[in-house]
Amino acid sequence: MAKREKYVYFFGGGKAEGKASMREYLGGKGAGLHEMTRIGASVPPGFTITTEVCTYYYAHNRQYPKGLEREVAAALKRVEKILGRRFGAGDNPLLVSVRSGARESMPGMMDTVLNLGLNDQTVQGLMGRAKKPRFAYDSYRRFVQMYGDVVMGLKPKEKGERDPFEVILERKKAARGARFDTDLSAEDLKELVTEFKAEIKTRLGKEFPEDPYEQLWGAIGAVLGSWNNDRATAYREHYRIPHTWGTAVNVQAMVFGNMGESCATGVAFTRDPATGAKRFYGEFLINAQGEDVVAGIRTPRPIAELKEVMPKSYRELERICKILERHYKDMQDIEFTIEEGKLWMLQTRAGKRTGFAAVRIAVDMVGERIISKKEALLRIEPDQLNQLLRPIFDSADKERTAKEGRIVAKGLPAGPGAATGRVVFSAEDAEAWGMRGERVILCRVETSPEDIRGMVAAQAILTARGGMTSHAALVARQMGKVCVVGCEALRMENARRQMAVGSKVLKEGDWISVDGSTGEVIEGEVRTLPSEVLQVLIGKSIEPKASHVYQRFAKLMKWVDETRKLGVRTNSDLPEQARTSRAFGAEGIGLCRTEHMFFEGERIRAVQEMILAETEDGRRRALAKLLPIQREDFKGILEVMGNLPVTIRTLDPPLHEFLPKDEEELEGLAGIMQVPIETLRNKVSALHEFNPMLGHRGCRLGISYPEITEMQARAIFEAACELRREGKNPFPEVMIPLVATRQELHAQREIVERVARETIQAYGVKIRYLVGTMIELPRACLVADEIAREAEFFSFGTNDLTQTCMGLSRDDAGKFLPSYIEHGVLPEDPFVSIDRDGVGALMRIAIEKGRKVRKDLEIGICGEHGGDPKSVAFCHKVGLDYVSCSPYRVPIAKLAAAQAVLQSGR
Amino acid sequence: MAKREKYVYFFGGGKAEGKASMREYLGGKGAGLHEMTRIGASVPPGFTITTEVCTYYYAHNRQYPKGLEREVAAALKRVEKILGRRFGAGDNPLLVSVRSGARESMPGMMDTVLNLGLNDQTVQGLMGRAKKPRFAYDSYRRFVQMYGDVVMGLKPKEKGERDPFEVILERKKAARGARFDTDLSAEDLKELVTEFKAEIKTRLGKEFPEDPYEQLWGAIGAVLGSWNNDRATAYREHYRIPHTWGTAVNVQAMVFGNMGESCATGVAFTRDPATGAKRFYGEFLINAQGEDVVAGIRTPRPIAELKEVMPKSYRELERICKILERHYKDMQDIEFTIEEGKLWMLQTRAGKRTGFAAVRIAVDMVGERIISKKEALLRIEPDQLNQLLRPIFDSADKERTAKEGRIVAKGLPAGPGAATGRVVFSAEDAEAWGMRGERVILCRVETSPEDIRGMVAAQAILTARGGMTSHAALVARQMGKVCVVGCEALRMENARRQMAVGSKVLKEGDWISVDGSTGEVIEGEVRTLPSEVLQVLIGKSIEPKASHVYQRFAKLMKWVDETRKLGVRTNSDLPEQARTSRAFGAEGIGLCRTEHMFFEGERIRAVQEMILAETEDGRRRALAKLLPIQREDFKGILEVMGNLPVTIRTLDPPLHEFLPKDEEELEGLAGIMQVPIETLRNKVSALHEFNPMLGHRGCRLGISYPEITEMQARAIFEAACELRREGKNPFPEVMIPLVATRQELHAQREIVERVARETIQAYGVKIRYLVGTMIELPRACLVADEIAREAEFFSFGTNDLTQTCMGLSRDDAGKFLPSYIEHGVLPEDPFVSIDRDGVGALMRIAIEKGRKVRKDLEIGICGEHGGDPKSVAFCHKVGLDYVSCSPYRVPIAKLAAAQAVLQSGR
Repeated sequence: MAKREKYVYFFGGGKAEGKASMREYLGGKGAGLHEMTRIGASVPPGFTITTEVCTYYYAHNRQYPKGLEREVAAALKRVEKILGRRFGAGDNPLLVSVRSGARESMPGMMDTVLNLGLNDQTVQGLMGRAKKPRFAYDSYRRFVQMYGDVVMGLKPKEKGERDPFEVILERKKAARGARFDTDLSAEDLKELVTEFKAEIKTRLGKEFPEDPYEQLWGAIGAVLGSWNNDRATAYREHYRIPHTWGTAVNVQAMVFGNMGESCATGVAFTRDPATGAKRFYGEFLINAQGEDVVAGIRTPRPIAELKEVMPKSYRELERICKILERHYKDMQDIEFTIEEGKLWMLQTRAGKRTGFAAVRIAVDMVGERIISKKEALLRIEPDQLNQLLRPIFDSADKERTAKEGRIVAKGLPAGPGAATGRVVFSAEDAEAWGMRGERVILCRVETSPEDIRGMVAAQAILTARGGMTSHAALVARQMGKVCVVGCEALRMENARRQMAVGSKVLKEGDWISVDGSTGEVIEGEVRTLPSEVLQVLIGKSIEPKASHVYQRFAKLMKWVDETRKLGVRTNSDLPEQARTSRAFGAEGIGLCRTEHMFFEGERIRAVQEMILAETEDGRRRALAKLLPIQREDFKGILEVMGNLPVTIRTLDPPLHEFLPKDEEELEGLAGIMQVPIETLRNKVSALHEFNPMLGHRGCRLGISYPEITEMQARAIFEAACELRREGKNPFPEVMIPLVATRQELHAQREIVERVARETIQAYGVKIRYLVGTMIELPRACLVADEIAREAEFFSFGTNDLTQTCMGLSRDDAGKFLPSYIEHGVLPEDPFVSIDRDGVGALMRIAIEKGRKVRKDLEIGICGEHGGDPKSVAFCHKVGLDYVSCSPYRVPIAKLAAAQAVLQSGR
Repeated sequence: MAKREKYVYFFGGGKAEGKASMREYLGGKGAGLHEMTRIGASVPPGFTITTEVCTYYYAHNRQYPKGLEREVAAALKRVEKILGRRFGAGDNPLLVSVRSGARESMPGMMDTVLNLGLNDQTVQGLMGRAKKPRFAYDSYRRFVQMYGDVVMGLKPKEKGERDPFEVILERKKAARGARFDTDLSAEDLKELVTEFKAEIKTRLGKEFPEDPYEQLWGAIGAVLGSWNNDRATAYREHYRIPHTWGTAVNVQAMVFGNMGESCATGVAFTRDPATGAKRFYGEFLINAQGEDVVAGIRTPRPIAELKEVMPKSYRELERICKILERHYKDMQDIEFTIEEGKLWMLQTRAGKRTGFAAVRIAVDMVGERIISKKEALLRIEPDQLNQLLRPIFDSADKERTAKEGRIVAKGLPAGPGAATGRVVFSAEDAEAWGMRGERVILCRVETSPEDIRGMVAAQAILTARGGMTSHAALVARQMGKVCVVGCEALRMENARRQMAVGSKVLKEGDWISVDGSTGEVIEGEVRTLPSEVLQVLIGKSIEPKASHVYQRFAKLMKWVDETRKLGVRTNSDLPEQARTSRAFGAEGIGLCRTEHMFFEGERIRAVQEMILAETEDGRRRALAKLLPIQREDFKGILEVMGNLPVTIRTLDPPLHEFLPKDEEELEGLAGIMQVPIETLRNKVSALHEFNPMLGHRGCRLGISYPEITEMQARAIFEAACELRREGKNPFPEVMIPLVATRQELHAQREIVERVARETIQAYGVKIRYLVGTMIELPRACLVADEIAREAEFFSFGTNDLTQTCMGLSRDDAGKFLPSYIEHGVLPEDPFVSIDRDGVGALMRIAIEKGRKVRKDLEIGICGEHGGDPKSVAFCHKVGLDYVSCSPYRVPIAKLAAAQAVLQSGR
């Protein structure tokens, strides 16, 4: 990010110093305001203080850079000039809002101050202009309250304590016999202002600042300070937004949607952010400030009604929205205010959307020739595809619940999907219950930014109030959470830890189900089915044409397949998983873990018999029992995969994993095996390892007990030969794990190749096969040239490679890894996204050395990173042939692979 | 090794096709025979089949290369021509010996066949020539016995069964009333030949081959085959001789030391192989074959007596030995035979010697201007210096044993040193007892190559028969074992598991002491003292001039210090160790493990208190108790080390290492700490790790609990400042362990630097110090450039680096590592010598990246590899500044460092 010469960028009156492309300096909101101004929408004038100021502020012990004050004053002058109002003037005063605006939207995470510039003098001016004393004092009251809270820090001291301002307000309402805020008179509000100020003075020992400039700098400081508040930090961690970016600050002339019945404020989307349907979509409130819509305190009215109430403004709004969508070539999320009949555009930005909407909008916009296929592919976060694959409710079972009267309420379908869980009423509970593995549904009147962690922990969010643009809806959409909002039939009784719906009472811990696609809330659990897309893919019940979701998904995946260069395989151990993999379009199996088969049913006995055998003969006898079972396992998988490659890994885990640990199980096994329990105990103890991760496992087992490798190879080749005889064309790839030296692979390969020759000769058929190795130790990377002489393929085992490269046991890192990430010692969890500097460097070495020796060396990855979009991008970049991931992540990996091509240009 | 065109090299009659420099093709013995022939010694003619044939033989399923047979036949013709005898002729037949000869001597490990060429016809010819029918048939009898054993494989079938040939021989002696073999007549021996052949036919179903050519090829095959017998393989593993080298085969005309009283055979050294004293040294037997000397069956006579018996041959021998030593510029080990007054030289080679002898000979030869200092430095295996540092018996205590009559016998001092252990009578027992940690003395009539593993396991070897050139003496010398041979007062009673010495009986398991420098055998244990060298170094009891061992050691170390470039530090945790380090000439401490101090005395309580503390405050309270203790620890070490650098590592092991594991200890601790045992149990369980090696340890502790690092830094800097105030000039280097990212080091360095500033300011002094890190994770190597921005020094922790690079837990690898090395999967134990291709590659990356960023980066190694000569050579090669090892290995590391300079030429 190049250093700029200016800290402040002005916009207004049809002109703007900034533009859309300056997002990193102006933040998303700021860049939008500048750009909107440029394209002719009426935007209240203002200016943006760049993100560089934020960075400077934190780097210099919360000092501002030199010259900032001068630039701010100059920009403020220009605003005054355009509007013909003056900041701090007792007569026709300029009021401003001060808002945060980061490069990426972080809705509701940071602080905002509205109505700034009001004091005992300027309120008179406002009153004069608006000719509505009640409005002026209400604004003043709100300003003092907001400023006292956000800037001065007057907040409840303890959990459970009520907001001191709210207490005073309630007291005033009680004294006046008023039910709503609106029942209070201008005089009441004026008194409130005085009482609020007194409360501030009492509690904080500081005077509320009357000087508008002091107010302004206080607010700027508060907004900058809020970049590092807890919830903003948590949010950035969740979305992996760098802490170093900083926020811009937008100072903008206030316009009022709450000056009376000719005023309104609202939010609109150019398309449906939940489903992606092409319809102008939004919500508004008459006589309200924008915050009222987002906060979800009042459930707003659908935008269609604005057409009836204020047809002229509606038409203008619709017109501008169309321009904005065409201009930005993306679905826009806009905020507007109508002040006494005049429409003001306050914000535009690419709208957050669900995975469903992301796919639909991207695909539809290609159809509408707004964007190219390439742009469409880049519009979707790969992880969003997850939503399209999530289970949905079984409609038969749901119908039954309807008959049984268990559909207790209906709200707005803000986040599609099916979720079942236990009712909790606070974010803290959601987090705590979630931590101990409970599935919970977070039920609130409305949500607020403080609830973020609880929302992350919940299966679904259900609110009684708020619309499609409320905080709950917005966040749920972004997280891909199931969400129903504005379900007004719910009556929350938090104190009693229950909620009432009609005559029903749902208590904390009760099971409910939430259908985020219909808005229905159902008592109890409802059976789920595979997602629409999956049902089509696996050829069940749903016809392709019957599902518009599938239609668009299929179209998208076609473009993905045309674009990507990386192959995508799956990690599958069983024929059923292999079938799912194929349905998702996997191009082979990248990792079939044979040991998973060892645990099934009675075969574990034969495995244990092998381990307990004292001699090679004894082991061979036990292995002979396993041979036919393994052969059938492999036959099943190879058959499902047709002529696609199936990478089968020979036995990997340490043998002690197959023996019971507790005394009771040991006794049971001793009985079955007819050996003294002491023998078993000794064996378990002899097999004990201090660091099993670095112990006697992987190919080391095959070197110690070549007969195990031999049996597995025989099972693989017999399975393949039998299929070949049946006219199939199987393609096994035998993978030797945990190789550190060429000699290890050589020794294991000799066994595999010998068994292959013997079996192929015995069956008299020809089969294709490869022998290769997992690259999962630093040493293997460093001597990859040597190893490549013995290997026809490499497959990076990045789980173990991460553990050894970083000296970090995944099972133990939980104790300190979270704090490492929190404190920025590590940018992210290296078990989620490949550590490029360390593990990635080893991969590069291995690839270069391996291909130097063997040009056609096939290289893939089978660690869990294979399904992580960032890691997939890295795999593309370093020239892998394929990634392998779990079946459900195939579409995600494929999309990530296609994006990698588009982003890298090769 | 370049491919040669010839497989067979002839020597004899003053001419030789090979020479000394062709050792890799001709083997040591062969090269010696060729060279001796060249320089004019009378060597029986013969030829050498090169090691390439051996390699070919094993690579081609035990087939010989084409043309070999023709070359052998041609060479045999030349031998026949020189001697005027014919192979297989009934009249004046040529007899040959067939012997192995590897590049490095492997005494007694491989097979030999003598007297080859004898059959029922040729024996007549031999009889004619020698005019001694008894000798001829004795030779024939020996040949059939040896050939039957070595080539045809007629051996005892089971352990304990007697040699079938010996059984027949004993029977014959009984029948004839003969006490010794020599009492048997020619006719008896002739009968024995027939009976031996019949036994072979009966037992093996094969005829003894009468055809001399068939005999010859059988013997060649047997010698090649013996390269891979168990004991040869074990020997190579012990001495790290590559299995791929192969052996040469020497076929040479037989000369006879056993044709009568004018014949003799013997072995001689040009200097004393035990002490290195410059004296002609050897042993001989009249009327015997060479094998009789080495086998230790008869104790031979000292060479001085030869002067009296055969003065002419003695003078000739002495003359040739002088020539040979001058020619080879090294102490020679020669074999000779006198056949009817004519001296034949059978072998010359550099003599194996003890560490004492190695140092003395090398230093003396420089004085004698035979070799240069450089050559002298290269003559000594660094590990041999170990012997000079081994404890010796406390002379006062030994005098007392003499008074008590406990010196029970005296033999030949074949391996200097003091050893105490329990008596065992078989190699198997020695190995088994040794495995369970017992110190044993292996007591045998004589040793044979089968005893190798037992000899390795024993503290000392004691034999009743055999001279200084017997198998026991030879092997002990090479291994640096304490050894007394030819202790004829011992009467072995193996069956009763005891031995008698005069009236004393020593039983299996009894304690004895063996003085390898005097030959004394002492009942019971004797107190030991530091070695002569060490006593001088630490300024105790012995005057430098009183110790010729020290004199030469000091001279050698002076040359070493003039030559080497690598610094040598030690790993020392306590002031006493530091003192020893300085005595050995350590140039600093490379690793001071602070946690070792944590276990001492009562301080472990404070450590446990810290671990159990639930809050930072609680931890700080406990740490405050540790601070003064640690400060004193550091002060002690820093003071001893003067102005030399002392690298202090901050806390490294996982915290659970400081808590007790068993229930009883837990109860005890709970009582002392006054916490419920449940709390303790929970803490232990919470701290449990699946892979502690990869867990919450190293700098990760310091990141989680910065107060620990802070306390340690404070202790270090307070100690340094106090010393500085006292006028000392301490030089601490603070080392942060287990760093994987720059951020980790940054965070820890900030704490250390802050504490340093604070402390230095408080004391008002200036001190030198560095802050750096251990490089012990692959990732640290890969991002070493980043890390070097925060580090003033690197110190490779190659123990952990080996574990992570290879994915090999040192605690667990014992289960398979030995078999890995045995099967050549790994060339050697990577925890002993640095794995150059893997770990070494990471080190190179780290050094290059580190120095790129910081030119003056100090780089050392503090893993145990720092004391391994091969690893030291590698450290020199890659440009480290120093190695750090245990105090006793300082001289070894220094010599290895000097050799590295000489070998690399820089």
